[in-house]
Amino acid sequence: MATSDHTYHPELTNAGLDAAAPVTALDEFGQPRDGHIAAERALTIYLDKREIITLMTLGTKPELLILGWLHNQRLITNLEQIRCIQVDWITGSAAVITYDGVEGLDEKLGRKTVTTGCGQGTIFGSLMDDLEKITLPRVETQQSQIYGMLQTLNNHNEIYRQAGAVHGCALCLDTEIQLFIEDVGRHNAVDAIAGHMWLHATPGHDKVFYTTGRLTSEMVIKVAQMGIPVLLSRSGVTQMGLELAQKMGITLIARAKGNHFLVYNGAENINYDAIPEQHLRPLAVNQA
Amino acid sequence: MATSDHTYHPELTNAGLDAAAPVTALDEFGQPRDGHIAAERALTIYLDKREIITLMTLGTKPELLILGWLHNQRLITNLEQIRCIQVDWITGSAAVITYDGVEGLDEKLGRKTVTTGCGQGTIFGSLMDDLEKITLPRVETQQSQIYGMLQTLNNHNEIYRQAGAVHGCALCLDTEIQLFIEDVGRHNAVDAIAGHMWLHATPGHDKVFYTTGRLTSEMVIKVAQMGIPVLLSRSGVTQMGLELAQKMGITLIARAKGNHFLVYNGAENINYDAIPEQHLRPLAVNQA
Repeated sequence: MATSDHTYHPELTNAGLDAAAPVTALDEFGQPRDGHIAAERALTIYLDKREIITLMTLGTKPELLILGWLHNQRLITNLEQIRCIQVDWITGSAAVITYDGVEGLDEKLGRKTVTTGCGQGTIFGSLMDDLEKITLPRVETQQSQIYGMLQTLNNHNEIYRQAGAVHGCALCLDTEIQLFIEDVGRHNAVDAIAGHMWLHATPGHDKVFYTTGRLTSEMVIKVAQMGIPVLLSRSGVTQMGLELAQKMGITLIARAKGNHFLVYNGAENINYDAIPEQHLRPLAVNQA
Repeated sequence: MATSDHTYHPELTNAGLDAAAPVTALDEFGQPRDGHIAAERALTIYLDKREIITLMTLGTKPELLILGWLHNQRLITNLEQIRCIQVDWITGSAAVITYDGVEGLDEKLGRKTVTTGCGQGTIFGSLMDDLEKITLPRVETQQSQIYGMLQTLNNHNEIYRQAGAVHGCALCLDTEIQLFIEDVGRHNAVDAIAGHMWLHATPGHDKVFYTTGRLTSEMVIKVAQMGIPVLLSRSGVTQMGLELAQKMGITLIARAKGNHFLVYNGAENINYDAIPEQHLRPLAVNQA
């Protein structure tokens, strides 16, 4: 794999597949309509030949997804432990081979049993434990930068536009999109971005994380762990997502679409340098 | 708890909480806007005093969620094993007490370690194994019934309309909504409906399952296990969701909103008795 930096890179396959499949459905007139649906594939991770988990994924960036998943689950903390990741779609498996095994794997998997699950498929307990250690820088975000990002992002939602049923996440620097990943689950898309950042030792402090999905506790925690201080979403916010953002000082901007957005936390970090014309202001005020 | 039938009912608390919390956010004009956001609460399940999992939930129907979760995870197969479920929000815990313990719990939890996870928080492996045993009846669905359901459902999306950031699922009989549950995760909403059906020994063969969320493999599998032969969604379909529906003979209707819908599987079971006026037909045909 080509490296743009001097960090260590494990050997990775490049087994990304097409995101959408053609399909014909009957509409309300009983007439056939051609279109596309999002792919969804089961990928079972074997860590040093031991079966760990089955992820359901779009399958476009399986190696980054596995890297980010291993990292976010705290199963592997040092990239240099990993010799290779080999994704094979014929068997729906990903072989992760380490140099020296994973110390305390049994204990780590035991922990997983207790806390993994419906928190959208993450190890919630462990994630929460680590939050105390996180300090995020306070950065200023320009309103014009938000609009610039939204404009650029508009051009990136390709799979969604083609096939629907996916979530997109993006890593942004100023108004530039450094990485845009879609998946059938938003936790996969954020894991894949984490995998990319881990692989390239990308700092988070100067980035904005964008997602089409909702800002739940899991999203806020994962993005905080990536060291990113600003979160931008097309969707809404949950109460726990907001509370965690308040605790960690994350700027939380949601319902961002066109010229509209709502700042749920960190409004003091927003520089309102591009306020729209007042006649565009909605009359209803009870729509946060 | 009041019983409307003669099945056994374990003792359940009634600890549902409000779904939304008031919040003020700053809009793009830098002006405050009052609104609501969806609650999100961590609920840790203790099965006979043993910590099993932490679920992130809206918290409106915690007992049904836990019942359905235990059932769908195959941890408890017989309702009469359960003495009581006590939800206590002060500690964020739910105590599930059985009469005689759960046989093979270690093994069941061990299995969970292998297969649980990013498949939206379900035990994908076990679920797949059971699919072979499922046979669903072939039922006819009237187009007029679909429109009737959509009309009734329109009045039910209350939390979504108020706070956003939630998914709704409904159990429908003809055009009547028997149960409507919203949660921050669609897997929770479907689990809670499964819990309700388990508790009341509700048959699935004559029902339609509606969801605002996407029809992924997990949704199709869970609904099939509930014995429901028709799935209706406001959102899209994934490829694996479609393949599973084809395999099990589930009628799959997606993108259902207003007069529009797309039948992805089981079109032969739809009686087109309410085809809209032809002038409403869109010109573009490439939008399945």
